Amino acid sequence: MPINITAFDRSPDGGKGLARDTRVRWALEEVGQPYVVDLVTFAALKQPRHLGRNPFGQIPTYDDGDVTLFESGAIVLRIAERFGHLLPDDATARSRAIMWMFAALNTVEPPIVDVTVAKIFEGDRPWAEERWPLVLARLRPRLDQLTAHLGQSEWLDGAFSAGDLMMVSVLLRARPSGLLAEWPLLDAYVARGEARPAYQRAFAAQLAVNTRPADA
Amino acid sequence: MPINITAFDRSPDGGKGLARDTRVRWALEEVGQPYVVDLVTFAALKQPRHLGRNPFGQIPTYDDGDVTLFESGAIVLRIAERFGHLLPDDATARSRAIMWMFAALNTVEPPIVDVTVAKIFEGDRPWAEERWPLVLARLRPRLDQLTAHLGQSEWLDGAFSAGDLMMVSVLLRARPSGLLAEWPLLDAYVARGEARPAYQRAFAAQLAVNTRPADA
Repeated sequence: MPINITAFDRSPDGGKGLARDTRVRWALEEVGQPYVVDLVTFAALKQPRHLGRNPFGQIPTYDDGDVTLFESGAIVLRIAERFGHLLPDDATARSRAIMWMFAALNTVEPPIVDVTVAKIFEGDRPWAEERWPLVLARLRPRLDQLTAHLGQSEWLDGAFSAGDLMMVSVLLRARPSGLLAEWPLLDAYVARGEARPAYQRAFAAQLAVNTRPADA
Repeated sequence: MPINITAFDRSPDGGKGLARDTRVRWALEEVGQPYVVDLVTFAALKQPRHLGRNPFGQIPTYDDGDVTLFESGAIVLRIAERFGHLLPDDATARSRAIMWMFAALNTVEPPIVDVTVAKIFEGDRPWAEERWPLVLARLRPRLDQLTAHLGQSEWLDGAFSAGDLMMVSVLLRARPSGLLAEWPLLDAYVARGEARPAYQRAFAAQLAVNTRPADA
């Protein structure tokens, strides 16, 4: 059976590649594996069929015939371990690449999501303006520190890896607020990720889903 | 050389086991590996020596002589892969255990940290009371969904794994606010984790550090 993933029927971002299925599509494109997509509406996310794939009712999920997984980090790691290309052969370099996946998801993504929450979900609340500097103060050190680590390097630790795939995917979410541009080295790093042919194919595939006519 | 980890010289929690070094100590106790601890003061976290171990200036870090790692998820995974015991032998069960590690760190921990931020860091702000229901509304579904998955099971997916170690560690952080008690099945699940001899040893070790006399 082909690899099956789930994605939003209509992503809240309208196709900017910020939904987490883009990471999985990107990984599958990097390793050259075809896949089919099961589109899930918001209503269907909380229905038994999807909750059987992911008890948290989120996309993406992944099924390769042997295992059904949720969590984009776990899925990208599974793809990397199963099909190669995205992790170094050397065991210690491999551990470091996986470390950068966790750093993206547990250290860098949460304060970026907080920015989205503050801007989108709480942007019209009476505290929005006064609270904004606090939200930014929690994100800023992370992006400063990541910049200091990256410097002029092309990728985080040698060749492009699943760690870069995840870090670029997470940083992309800081672009709509205009923040990413304030860290030019990270902005350029993200642009290098986006320039990869595999990313281009993944982005085009999710965009096609999100911009198709309503009756398609 | 022995395994070396870093931990807070004095943890902000005063020794309740909520700092992320407890997860690493617990994993090392589960696999029966001795380790030495390098205590780091808050001032030293941002000094070049520690930034060389972790560019984000956080604890814990880990060094087994072959590789230096940060991110508690990456460290626990390295320990599990290197010393056994914490991941199933079966490849698909192993992928699912790793999935639960990512679920703990990327889906469950962020809204729990947001509770801490709202209570501790923003508790005296003028918006604290009005904003609290929004913070809780983002956490509640996650704990409801996790409860629905766990049900009456002892662990998340068969035998105790690194996924449980991480999920218990993350849920523990919802206890000081009194929230964890509102989800009795999760509270009991955490208690099962805490009852493990390896956890007890890890907890005692971090407590001894945090309750030693100031001049020790």
